[in-house]
Amino acid sequence: MTTHQTGTIPDAEPLAAAADLGAALRELIEISVTTTVVPAELRAAAALVREATERLAVARRPASQLPALDDVVTGRRLFNPVTGIGSPLAPPVTVRRDTDGVVAEVTLGVAYEGPPSFVHGGMSALFMDQLLGSAAAAAGRWGMTAHLELDYRGPLPLETPLVMRARVAEHSGRKSLVTGTIAPAEDPDRILIEARGVFVMPRPEKVEAYFGAITDASGRHSPPRRPGDATPIDDQD
Amino acid sequence: MTTHQTGTIPDAEPLAAAADLGAALRELIEISVTTTVVPAELRAAAALVREATERLAVARRPASQLPALDDVVTGRRLFNPVTGIGSPLAPPVTVRRDTDGVVAEVTLGVAYEGPPSFVHGGMSALFMDQLLGSAAAAAGRWGMTAHLELDYRGPLPLETPLVMRARVAEHSGRKSLVTGTIAPAEDPDRILIEARGVFVMPRPEKVEAYFGAITDASGRHSPPRRPGDATPIDDQD
Repeated sequence: MTTHQTGTIPDAEPLAAAADLGAALRELIEISVTTTVVPAELRAAAALVREATERLAVARRPASQLPALDDVVTGRRLFNPVTGIGSPLAPPVTVRRDTDGVVAEVTLGVAYEGPPSFVHGGMSALFMDQLLGSAAAAAGRWGMTAHLELDYRGPLPLETPLVMRARVAEHSGRKSLVTGTIAPAEDPDRILIEARGVFVMPRPEKVEAYFGAITDASGRHSPPRRPGDATPIDDQD
Repeated sequence: MTTHQTGTIPDAEPLAAAADLGAALRELIEISVTTTVVPAELRAAAALVREATERLAVARRPASQLPALDDVVTGRRLFNPVTGIGSPLAPPVTVRRDTDGVVAEVTLGVAYEGPPSFVHGGMSALFMDQLLGSAAAAAGRWGMTAHLELDYRGPLPLETPLVMRARVAEHSGRKSLVTGTIAPAEDPDRILIEARGVFVMPRPEKVEAYFGAITDASGRHSPPRRPGDATPIDDQD
């Protein structure tokens, strides 16, 4: 491990291997919900999956211990279910700073389907919660979701590039009002989802109550300084 | 295939094999985000995952074609990302009718984490959207999400049984106002999430515009009669 002024940079290989497994699982998930092979082939695939599970199950961390690759200072959360490169549930979404807030592109496969050929309405809410929280964090105002509200103007198509935006509209004390949108990337003015959220930075005693038992990978007490849903921002672009 | 008055009952083995693969993948996902094995073991697991992907990738359906095991009449959606027994993204949630609406229990693992040791705020929104839609469908009022709103009273703990409820509060024409809650199963009066949603049954011309290209597994034109996010209800309980 190398210590850097903005956090800890892990060795490249553990990060690359976790990202590789995330990518492999994401691909298998999408294939598993669209395959039309015979049941015997599904069973054979399940056997391979269980073989992989056995290899990984020999050593595990509890939920109260942060992953070794996470960094609470820079907000890197490797297994965040929207942005985490190691999360099989995440597309994953890469959130970038924009002039006025944050922006991200995403293309969602059949695994995210609600009504036939469209994104599940709840998935739009999941992605907006993450993006709104990321906008708050990018503005130095991390917080936890207190209120989330979405208007659905039309269904989001699967397998189609989408653009998501969010910005802090107002803030006062520990509270931020954040707004966001989702639109087709090819027609970004055709807003299909509009979202508003209120994110609140918990008081110190709440941080202690919520996160007092959290430890880092070495077992040290490590209450996160930015415990929001909302942390990873790619500053490389 | 056997035809039943409320829909088509598939042979047991294809359904069981798809559910088995879903269960195996779900377990691997949870292990993959909590394992502490060395990178070489992650790479070995990824290789097994890619072997499984290759087996399943030989025959696939497009997004416009419903899975053979789905049933648009009874609303069985095998790969729904909240309730689908075949979906690796789904816990999966089993929604049952209750006196006044619908109810479901769920325990969420680390794969669903937002802030350390708590459920991602957007996941609460995903689950509430599904449950509210299911309540509308259970009342014979299926629809697509038009508005969704959540108040977060406190963070939802991971690895803890939760109870989710939803009921149609009001309806008028094609519109239903549905409310819902999430609470710890052991302390069901301690409501941590409150949700309200408006679900709208699309007009026939919208159904045609949205779903006109959907076919069933045999390639026949098959616009869903219940295209909501929101369909599977377990009437066995």
